[in-house]
Amino acid sequence: MAGGATECCRHIVCEGCPVLLVIDEKRRFIFRVERGRVQGSDRGTVRHDDLIGLRYGSRVRLSSGIYALVLQPRLVDYMERGLRRRSQVIYPKDHGLILMLLDIEPGNRVLEIGVGSGYTTIVLARAVGPEGKVYSYEIRRDMFETARRNLETVGLLDRVELKHRDARLGVDEENLDAAVVDMPDPWAVLPVLHRALRPGAGVVFFLPAVNQVARLLAALELHGGWAETRVYEVLLREYEPRSDALRPRTTMIAHTGYLVYTRRIERDMGQHQDTDKGG
Amino acid sequence: MAGGATECCRHIVCEGCPVLLVIDEKRRFIFRVERGRVQGSDRGTVRHDDLIGLRYGSRVRLSSGIYALVLQPRLVDYMERGLRRRSQVIYPKDHGLILMLLDIEPGNRVLEIGVGSGYTTIVLARAVGPEGKVYSYEIRRDMFETARRNLETVGLLDRVELKHRDARLGVDEENLDAAVVDMPDPWAVLPVLHRALRPGAGVVFFLPAVNQVARLLAALELHGGWAETRVYEVLLREYEPRSDALRPRTTMIAHTGYLVYTRRIERDMGQHQDTDKGG
Amino acid sequence: MAGGATECCRHIVCEGCPVLLVIDEKRRFIFRVERGRVQGSDRGTVRHDDLIGLRYGSRVRLSSGIYALVLQPRLVDYMERGLRRRSQVIYPKDHGLILMLLDIEPGNRVLEIGVGSGYTTIVLARAVGPEGKVYSYEIRRDMFETARRNLETVGLLDRVELKHRDARLGVDEENLDAAVVDMPDPWAVLPVLHRALRPGAGVVFFLPAVNQVARLLAALELHGGWAETRVYEVLLREYEPRSDALRPRTTMIAHTGYLVYTRRIERDMGQHQDTDKGG
Amino acid sequence: MAGGATECCRHIVCEGCPVLLVIDEKRRFIFRVERGRVQGSDRGTVRHDDLIGLRYGSRVRLSSGIYALVLQPRLVDYMERGLRRRSQVIYPKDHGLILMLLDIEPGNRVLEIGVGSGYTTIVLARAVGPEGKVYSYEIRRDMFETARRNLETVGLLDRVELKHRDARLGVDEENLDAAVVDMPDPWAVLPVLHRALRPGAGVVFFLPAVNQVARLLAALELHGGWAETRVYEVLLREYEPRSDALRPRTTMIAHTGYLVYTRRIERDMGQHQDTDKGG
Repeated sequence: MAGGATECCRHIVCEGCPVLLVIDEKRRFIFRVERGRVQGSDRGTVRHDDLIGLRYGSRVRLSSGIYALVLQPRLVDYMERGLRRRSQVIYPKDHGLILMLLDIEPGNRVLEIGVGSGYTTIVLARAVGPEGKVYSYEIRRDMFETARRNLETVGLLDRVELKHRDARLGVDEENLDAAVVDMPDPWAVLPVLHRALRPGAGVVFFLPAVNQVARLLAALELHGGWAETRVYEVLLREYEPRSDALRPRTTMIAHTGYLVYTRRIERDMGQHQDTDKGG
Repeated sequence: MAGGATECCRHIVCEGCPVLLVIDEKRRFIFRVERGRVQGSDRGTVRHDDLIGLRYGSRVRLSSGIYALVLQPRLVDYMERGLRRRSQVIYPKDHGLILMLLDIEPGNRVLEIGVGSGYTTIVLARAVGPEGKVYSYEIRRDMFETARRNLETVGLLDRVELKHRDARLGVDEENLDAAVVDMPDPWAVLPVLHRALRPGAGVVFFLPAVNQVARLLAALELHGGWAETRVYEVLLREYEPRSDALRPRTTMIAHTGYLVYTRRIERDMGQHQDTDKGG
Repeated sequence: MAGGATECCRHIVCEGCPVLLVIDEKRRFIFRVERGRVQGSDRGTVRHDDLIGLRYGSRVRLSSGIYALVLQPRLVDYMERGLRRRSQVIYPKDHGLILMLLDIEPGNRVLEIGVGSGYTTIVLARAVGPEGKVYSYEIRRDMFETARRNLETVGLLDRVELKHRDARLGVDEENLDAAVVDMPDPWAVLPVLHRALRPGAGVVFFLPAVNQVARLLAALELHGGWAETRVYEVLLREYEPRSDALRPRTTMIAHTGYLVYTRRIERDMGQHQDTDKGG
Repeated sequence: MAGGATECCRHIVCEGCPVLLVIDEKRRFIFRVERGRVQGSDRGTVRHDDLIGLRYGSRVRLSSGIYALVLQPRLVDYMERGLRRRSQVIYPKDHGLILMLLDIEPGNRVLEIGVGSGYTTIVLARAVGPEGKVYSYEIRRDMFETARRNLETVGLLDRVELKHRDARLGVDEENLDAAVVDMPDPWAVLPVLHRALRPGAGVVFFLPAVNQVARLLAALELHGGWAETRVYEVLLREYEPRSDALRPRTTMIAHTGYLVYTRRIERDMGQHQDTDKGG
């Protein structure tokens, strides 16, 4: 929190800072500034050297004479066009709710099973801050590599332990604060999750099809160490931001997946048994 | 982050820890544990002393013989029934997207105009962590007091500077990382926001009616120091979590408000002017 | 269709005409006008005799001095408060789509299995006109009676053959133009439907839970005499109709049921067999 | 309603009958059968002569050996790909609700202002039956011609009086049962509508932008001859019809337009005046 009005990457574009260059709705580019490089587009080019020293939020003149806007890329901007995508990804509309449901806060230690392209990893890594840690398991080599590159791109790799491993066989951590599970057969990791999470910790499962949701709900009941189960879906509707003709966009993403939330509780032999004090 | 399997309030209920006691769907109580006190309900009572030493996620036997679940209250649990409410509040479905749109991270310094019951303040305060700060302006005395109590209840008051002031007359801070504005006439604070935010910082305005959205969009265009404006609404749909009869809940909250996102850019005399390097 | 500007029940309130009396948002009454009767309310009363001769769309003065609006009740008004309800009913938002999907037109002969409170029967009966017919099967005696009364109330009983019978054992009709099925186990009537419908005719199944939808889809595939299957749900969002504070209502009906549409085709031994010309 | 199991166009494909030929999800063709013609596709062709005599719901073998399904086209099939489109059109999801809100029934005489491509005209023409009539006003010559051709295509032109006229200057009819208005400035026809509709008749206005809705609401209040105003939007969500992986389609039409419903009432000098009996 040091820095003043001239802090690099926060206020001023310095060498190595990430930039979101906005020419128009369709032409949006994310890159890191390197001396000597040129950013091209079919509407004109800009030399990185000309960006250095600019305040974010300024306009820069392209070779064509057109002006483009120079901004810091947010995570949601990266997700829209600055990252590699190898899989169906979870969207920011879902990420936001996941953070809220799981009560993620700085310092948390979070488990992730099924990393995909690493978008959720990134969101979790930012939310837990430099004191926290994300432990991420991915079974597919290509996904694992994609996620690693994406984490590097946004500069959050150091907060993540990325493991190319099958979490169904167990995870190394315990007493974790929360978990996000994005895999086709999440019922296969319920015992693993139960061992890895601290008492009362929450999990969010991300599932595209209702059949998976029904099957997971049945498994949670059968397993018995879970409570407070909820099923959600988030619909995000965007509007054309025109003051004189305000209306929803014609098309929208109507479905990404369902979010199943549940909490780890003590397993017992049914509710008839006395609760052991002191666990 | 220290602590082991017996850390107070995280794993084990100690004196002073918050508890969410779940008897059934409707009977959910949030309180802090105090020796000698009793928690009542129409389904039986429990002595706080009997909770001390329990692992979270355990069941405790009420005086009636019924068992209740002992959990840590999450912020979303507090918002459902642990806090005072004096106003229409923003919901977790919206809070999640706000965190994502504004790129909130640990250490951020965030402005809030229009505190209401303090729900958003709480969410922001948690997300910025102990290194960050939320500066919150509220014009109404009753709201101000309610928000302060709610912040105390969740233990986050120390991360917030709560001011009983009219932000339309100006705010004390500058170079802030983000802002959330929840007031009926947000166009009145555009100049104040522009001065208070660092270059490229984002704002989310929360607005219940479309007329307000249209008017704000017009004001943003007129003011000229804003770009990347987007309008969203978030619909959260919850399902009955029954594996054999999975279906959406019959009723839902269909509307809380619209979220208008925009970013602070350098004001200029139009795009025809040369951009000043070095700001 | 004759009648001029003084046609009874269409323009002018006559004895025996139905009336929707609107005092305010909450106080809406539907009744038939009978000489000598009085319509009461906690905001004042009106003598039916005072309504006779009024043009619809007029205001009438209640005993309290308050004015109320005199309108013809539409089917959707009846469904809101003029009919008996013994079951979860299908809503107008779904009825409208059902009419469109099934291409219902005047003169059609339509099958209905599972009548419930008769709301869908009423909608179909109106759409097929006096030349058409609705054949409705209901297994429960109480529902059967409720539906009959509701059909009498709206004056459409003569277009309906209401049968207190189990359609799973077969129906009497054939060559029908369309069918609506609202029962918990619709897979049990697929052979019956196939025999009763004309070639190419459509069916809409109304199902509250996703499990039922999945099971029906499986049964349709297995049975083999169906094609063009589609699954829909309709969400109706209502707005507060205030020009200066236009916004969606806070709560909405988030779910009634899923609509599964399919069309009867010729069953064959798979697509490899030659199609028999001339059927 | 005569006809038996061999009725032309209803059961059996005869010369002149309309056909929906379904090869697969993407390859769907609508045409009238004419001896000697051939229907082409990139997956094979079929001679119309080979279709004659087939039962609807049969499969026919294309020149390629692939089988295609032979069905009657529904109005919603025509709207998907059998009609010309010159404008943003109203969708079946909205048409269904319009029929319900306006209580359209066989024999009705309905006004339509703003015909566009004639989709709504077609829906209304079918619903009013051969005894009813639709009076449709369209100011643009190209739309007028498109609508006429589309009405011919579906065979409903005889139920419609299509007028190339500006309805803002007045309409010829009176005592009409209902109206649908799809134009950018519907407030301009409120007096015309009031004169043309019978007492208590309903109108639905279709409007893409919220600004138009707000302005229309204000005009309705100001004009004074309207009541029971409601604002709706209909969201139609379609699912992938797979029994083992049931899930909503990824994208959907998120917006077509808002539906504003209102009813014609007697204008008066405010509610304080006595209502004139007998109008």
